[in-house]
Parts: sequence; C-alpha cells; structure tokens
Amino acid sequence: MFNAPQQINSQGDLTHMLSIEGLNQESIIKILDKAQSFFDPKGILKHSLLLQNKIIANLFFEPSTRTRSTFELAAKRLSANVLNLNDSTSSTSKGESLRDTVRNLEAMQCDIFVVRHPFSGAAHFVAQQVKPGLSVINAGDGCHAHPTQALLDMFTIRKHRKDFHNLTVAIVGDIKHSRVARSQIQALHLLKTGEIRIIGPKTLLPDFPETLGLQTYYNLQEGLRNVDIIMMLRLQRERMQGCLLPQGNAYYHLYGLTDTSLKYANPDALIIHPGPINRGVEIQSEIADSKNAVILDQVTNGVAVRMAILSLLHETQERERKVK
Amino acid sequence: MFNAPQQINSQGDLTHMLSIEGLNQESIIKILDKAQSFFDPKGILKHSLLLQNKIIANLFFEPSTRTRSTFELAAKRLSANVLNLNDSTSSTSKGESLRDTVRNLEAMQCDIFVVRHPFSGAAHFVAQQVKPGLSVINAGDGCHAHPTQALLDMFTIRKHRKDFHNLTVAIVGDIKHSRVARSQIQALHLLKTGEIRIIGPKTLLPDFPETLGLQTYYNLQEGLRNVDIIMMLRLQRERMQGCLLPQGNAYYHLYGLTDTSLKYANPDALIIHPGPINRGVEIQSEIADSKNAVILDQVTNGVAVRMAILSLLHETQERERKVK
Amino acid sequence: MFNAPQQINSQGDLTHMLSIEGLNQESIIKILDKAQSFFDPKGILKHSLLLQNKIIANLFFEPSTRTRSTFELAAKRLSANVLNLNDSTSSTSKGESLRDTVRNLEAMQCDIFVVRHPFSGAAHFVAQQVKPGLSVINAGDGCHAHPTQALLDMFTIRKHRKDFHNLTVAIVGDIKHSRVARSQIQALHLLKTGEIRIIGPKTLLPDFPETLGLQTYYNLQEGLRNVDIIMMLRLQRERMQGCLLPQGNAYYHLYGLTDTSLKYANPDALIIHPGPINRGVEIQSEIADSKNAVILDQVTNGVAVRMAILSLLHETQERERKVK
Repeated sequence: MFNAPQQINSQGDLTHMLSIEGLNQESIIKILDKAQSFFDPKGILKHSLLLQNKIIANLFFEPSTRTRSTFELAAKRLSANVLNLNDSTSSTSKGESLRDTVRNLEAMQCDIFVVRHPFSGAAHFVAQQVKPGLSVINAGDGCHAHPTQALLDMFTIRKHRKDFHNLTVAIVGDIKHSRVARSQIQALHLLKTGEIRIIGPKTLLPDFPETLGLQTYYNLQEGLRNVDIIMMLRLQRERMQGCLLPQGNAYYHLYGLTDTSLKYANPDALIIHPGPINRGVEIQSEIADSKNAVILDQVTNGVAVRMAILSLLHETQERERKVK
Repeated sequence: MFNAPQQINSQGDLTHMLSIEGLNQESIIKILDKAQSFFDPKGILKHSLLLQNKIIANLFFEPSTRTRSTFELAAKRLSANVLNLNDSTSSTSKGESLRDTVRNLEAMQCDIFVVRHPFSGAAHFVAQQVKPGLSVINAGDGCHAHPTQALLDMFTIRKHRKDFHNLTVAIVGDIKHSRVARSQIQALHLLKTGEIRIIGPKTLLPDFPETLGLQTYYNLQEGLRNVDIIMMLRLQRERMQGCLLPQGNAYYHLYGLTDTSLKYANPDALIIHPGPINRGVEIQSEIADSKNAVILDQVTNGVAVRMAILSLLHETQERERKVK
Repeated sequence: MFNAPQQINSQGDLTHMLSIEGLNQESIIKILDKAQSFFDPKGILKHSLLLQNKIIANLFFEPSTRTRSTFELAAKRLSANVLNLNDSTSSTSKGESLRDTVRNLEAMQCDIFVVRHPFSGAAHFVAQQVKPGLSVINAGDGCHAHPTQALLDMFTIRKHRKDFHNLTVAIVGDIKHSRVARSQIQALHLLKTGEIRIIGPKTLLPDFPETLGLQTYYNLQEGLRNVDIIMMLRLQRERMQGCLLPQGNAYYHLYGLTDTSLKYANPDALIIHPGPINRGVEIQSEIADSKNAVILDQVTNGVAVRMAILSLLHETQERERKVK
C-alpha cells in the first residue's frame, strides 16, 4: 500500500515493524516465539536488562491508553529509557512537521521510534526519514495498519489453538475502516489460516473481498456458524462519516455479539477484541466477561509481543553496529 | 461507609490502603515506624532497591501535583517503575469504564494501583475488582477519605509530640466536605488523641459531631484555646455548592488563622495544612511561613509515608506469593 | 538585569545556571569541555551513573518539546530520576504560586530544578527561593535568557571553528524579544568573538545596540557579507504584538535566509537555528537542510551540554555537602 522501507534485512533480521504486509510466516513465528520467552512458567512477565541505556521514543499523535501503556511497560521491563511525546505537548503546536519532529528525536539519539498517527502511512514516512540503523514501530496509522495488535492477536490464538490451518476465523464489524482488521487479515493469511470470514453491513466491508481471500457475510448468525475464532472490532464512531451505520442500537441488534448470536459459533470459540470494548454496542457485556473471551489475556500478551519486537529490533541494531 | 475489602489480612499484614477506618492503632504505628526508617540521621530520604522491577500504576482522575508527585517519587526512591495515567490521556475519553480501565492495567501486570478519583468509594471499588494479591492505595476519593494524607499528618505530629494521649487537636474549616478531615479524625481516634475539636461555620460541620467523638466550636478563638495542634483545611471553593460560605473575605475574618487568632492556642502549637495553601483565604500568609507551621515538613514526610505504604504492601504481596 | 543569585561560588564551581551574564570565559569553557567528554569517539552520547538516585524536577510552564526532551534525556543518560511537571498538571490550576510550588518540590527533596516560564526572571526568582545547596537551571524565561541554548550554540560553533577571535557572527531576526539572542550575544562576547552583527527590521532590534557592542544592519545581504556564522532566530509570531512585522511573506523576502542571501556570506558559513524552524518563514527549506546548516547537530549537542551542566551542578552539591 505504501512505498515501504524494508522491514527485514538480507540476513532475515527485523529492522522495522511497520505492517504485516512486509513480513513472512517465519518472521511472525520468530516474534511469537520470542514473546513466549518473556513469560515465566506461571505466566508472569519477566524483566531483562537487554535494552539498558537504550532510548525508546513513544510518539502518540492520537489518544491511547492501552497501546501507549503496554509499549511503555514493555520498554521498561527491558530496562530501556522511555521518552513520551504526545500531541498536546509536542511542538506540532508550534507548527513543526512530523518530519522535523522525527529528525530532532533522531538527533537526540533515540534508538527506536514508536509512532501512532491519525494519517495512514505516517510510520512508513518516519521509517523513510530516519537514518539506517534506527528502527520504527507502527502503533497504528490512520485506517492503514496496526501490526503489533495483529501480532498479539495471533499470539493469543496460537496459545489456545496449536494450528492455524484448520481454523475458521470471523472478523466482525467495520472491516473497511479498521487498521486492526487489515493487519489481522494479513497475519492470518501468512499463518495459513483455513478460512477467513468478514461479517458486517455492506457499507463497512471492503469493496473486493474476494481479492483479499475473504468470505463475506452480511448476516452475523450465518457468518458465525462453525467459527473457531471471533475477532470483534471496536465500533469506531469517531472514525465514521455520515450515514454508514444503522441508527441507534440497530447495529447492536444486527451485529452485536450476544449469547444468541454466539450459539451459532463453535462452543469453544475464542472471542478476541482489541479494546477498549463498547459494552452493549458491539458486544454484550456478559459475553465480554465470559470464559470464551480472552480480551484481557490479549492485553498481557500485548506487553510480551511488544517486548519481543523491541528486543528483535535492538538485536538487529547491535548486529549491524558490529558489522560497521 | 463502603462495603470495604479487607485492608489487613489474618496475619496482620497490610493488603490495601483504602481508608483509616479499616486500620487499627498497631497497623498505623507500624506504617509510621516504617516511614521513619526511610530517613537518614540528617533527615534525607533514602533510596532502596526494594521494589525493583515492580510496576506502580498512578491513576489520577483529578488534578494533583503534590500527591501525584510524592507517590511518583516514593515509588522511584524504592526503584519501582511508575506508569502515570491521568484523566485526559486515559481511555475514559473513549468511554471506557473505571472497571475496564483497572482490569486492563491488571492484565498489564501492574503490582500496585494508586487511585485518585472525584467519586467517593472509587478506590474501594477498584480494590473489589482486582485479583487477590494486588494492592490498591486510595489517594483521595470524592468527599470520602484521603488516608495517606492523614497518615503523614500523624507522622508529622508524632515527630514533634511524643504522645497523642494528652494532646488537644483542632481541625478548622470545611470539615463536612473534607476527605482529609474524615481520615484525620479516624486516625486521631485510633491513636487515642486526648481531645479532638472541630471549628467552622455550622454549614461546614458534620451533622452529629457528638457521635464522632468531637467537640464543636463555631468560634475560632474559643476553639483554639489551649490547643496543641491546629489542623487547617484548604477552602475547597470548587467543591462547595451555593451559599454555604460567608461572602468575600468574611470567611477569612471569622475562620482564617491569623496572628490574632493564633494567640489563643498554646504558644508552641503546631500548624498543619494539607496544601496547596490559599494564602489570605484560610490562613494568613506570614503564619503559613512561621516557625509553628510544619506544612513543608509534611510534604517531606508524605514521601516517606508513601514509601512505607508501598513497601508494606509489597512485602505482603511477596509473603502471599511464597505461601502459594 | 535581575537581582541575580550567584551562579559561581568562591571556589569557581557552578551553583546555578540562570543566565550567561553571571558566567565568565573560564566557566563557559569548562562547561563546553565537560559536554565534549560525554561523546564517544564516534559521536555517540555516553551513559553514566553519576546522578544515580538524584531527582531532577522539570518545571515547564510553557510548551516545549526539544528543550524539555533534551533535559529529560540528559538526566536519564546520567541515571537521574526525572519528575516532569507542566502547566496543565501543576497545581497552579488550584491557584498555587510559583514560590509555593517550588518550596513543595524542595520539600520532596528534589536536587536540581529545570525551569521554563513565560515571565522574565522566573528562574532567578526560583533560585532565590531554594535552600543553599540546591540548584536551578533556566530553560528559558520570558524575553530574558535561555543560557543552555546559547551554550549549545557555542559548543556547536567551537566544534567547527577552533577560535572565536577571528569570527564574524551575524544574528538574524527578532533580536529585541529573543531570550535566545540575548544569551547568545553575552556568550559570544565572553568568548571574545571578533565581530557580532545583528540583522533585522528596526522594530525588532534592540534600542541601543552600540552599548551592547553590536554592529547593526537593516539589510540582510549587507549584514551577511563575509560572515562566518549565521545565527537565525525563530520568528516567534506568538510573542509579537501588533504591527511590528512586515505583512505576509514580506518578512521572508526581506529577512528570510535563502540561497540568494546566503551567497553574501562566506562559502563555508555555518547556519545555526534554535528550532523549531519555520520553513519558508525565516529560512528557505532547502537551506535548512543544506550542508552548511548544523541545526540537528545542535540538538545532539544540546543533550551533551545539558548533561555537562547537570553534572557540574551535582559535583558542586557533593563538594558542598562534604564541607558541611
């Protein structure tokens, strides 16, 4: 989609984490395995001195609690220093461009840039700007990609289901405008998922789903039939223009995941949601808290996956430094 | 007042710090002694590695400098990692409930939650939500409680006066709406303070002071007669509705602590104030800076008391972990 | 200009960094040499444990990315703890005065205060308030001074030009209202710079430039003739009242640094700018990115210079503590 900087170098090492698109099955599995290594046998996240004296710049141009906090905690669990910059305190209020902001942080000798931005392609743009040897992580860019979210989702699925080949996965909601869905679909394909379905009103589904290897369902109950994994999306009201959505709680009645609709899926179907959940909007409150839902487990896994990505990027940087 | 989770377990160890109400004399003295241990002989606060690799989540849903900063510094002096979340950056802007916010932080494997919230009972609510083994500290909830403030006040009094039994203490101001006063009164009672007086206009005093073991005075000078400790409250204009207050500086003339009114108290009476002080509103500027005032000493003690509480909660967590 | 606390004690050690005015050539060179020591041979900034367990309070009452971030990173590279306080979260929203805010931070046993404030003299005021043994750094106060910016500029010039004696330096823009220019001029004088020129419209130049030892030019091209160092200032639109400025891009045509005007300077003239740059307002975009421009190098040097100042202040504190 974007003129992407290389995410994997000729040695197969991770240099940026911009989108799932530039990865392959091997690199995804490497990240998931690395993430697994940060858990102790009781499921407690470990601490490490790996990134001691390194500086992680957290550039958030959109509000975020979950993603920003998990990146901050991932960095701190690796003993890195964290520099938080967000919209309101950044000098964009003095009219500085993203390019100049990034070059300044680079001059401050930050090592890894975590970027969330309302514009699609912002993280790719940053990766094009920084010097070789520095790394950029996309923490969500416009409607484009949210690769670390997709990776933590894959980690969560893999934890509960050994194999992706025989899985039927359904993604429900506003697929068209969702950076999460876009990254999830790419990751599921790379992991050779058996069947990927998208479920939602026509206005919220992509225009040519066949070309994306997707089965389309406009009816939730039909779409959930025999599904193993249900990936709910957050109804991003703020990102929708005009009359794309059924009015009032019509959306909930048609596409909300409730105990009624859930019956159509396999009894042990996993329910995944990137959070924050809108209880009673896209999901019934009791379902979000039910045994099938692994929404909070995803949050924990998110810390581990981000630790894994930070570690792998750092290891690549160290290797490249030695070569020089 | 609230359906409170247990703050002290069957071994007598501190598990939460939600209100003074659930404590006893022994547990308060244990906290004060622990706080004392963090000072070197010159009064300099020590550093410790005790909470290394632990994560303290600072959840502030009300603006605060003093309390938030002293908690942050207390945590850092114990080598803990601090995650600051405040109103504006939290995902409450995306409509997430306090309950879901806390569960997410729990999933991020934070160890201790420090919570300030405009709603009375918020910290208790959080303590009810978190898993056994995690701890919550109330940093002020609505008009209900501010236990760490009361404990630092007790620490400050004890530093200057050996014994609480023979002390006459007066609390001056808006007792009725003050979480600070509520916690102070409970702590003074638990420490068996000789006499506790409340002084203020009728509209700002609790309805049945006798039941709280308090002497009521509507006249400042009468109330201050032979007093050892004067605990001033901040005039929380923002928390008052309508016409509870005498107009203009009438309040200052009636209830402001000035050199005139101070003459009625014992000559060495200590003046305590939770800050930030409103100079010329509830206290004469010169009095706030006088030798009798220990307002800044309270701030230093606040760091030590918060270090003590964090340490004790951590020690309980470690002990419980070993039992499992 | 202000009733300044002593910045250098009787042993010649740095006790505060408030303005260039109170320094001398020797103390400036000491800071620049110290800053140099924080670079490894490849130009990478080092880490040090020097300020371990120390607390740096970053008080920013004006928005800032660059200065705040470089102070934070300088402190972290020295292993200090950083407490960030900015306008919106500080208790000035509860009406507390700067004096009381500082005294409270002092009571929290912060060691060094970094202060940016819209009022000229704010940092001096803070330095007058704090106890002996504590140190204050001025990170910009109103239209008065920005000494750490001037020092990083001197560091940058010295890096490229051995000697100040034979240099012709031109400062271009709103000299009159610029704290950066004021500090630069003082530093250039102390380092015995050959010739210092100021260039700008009459309304933006100081009233009696001769008394400041400056050559005045109202014409950019004339002023740049044979210049070795061009110090551009940011056009602080927000700080200008009324009709001091030529309308629209008339300013750019008259005083913007472009390839046309640059031809008048020496071919290897260094271009310096405190950032954030206004591309197309005071400088042509291509010129800002050209080889002659060392604007990003300044940012890196800013971290080193701030590390140097923090280190020197800390060393003075340690020395004074031992004497006691």
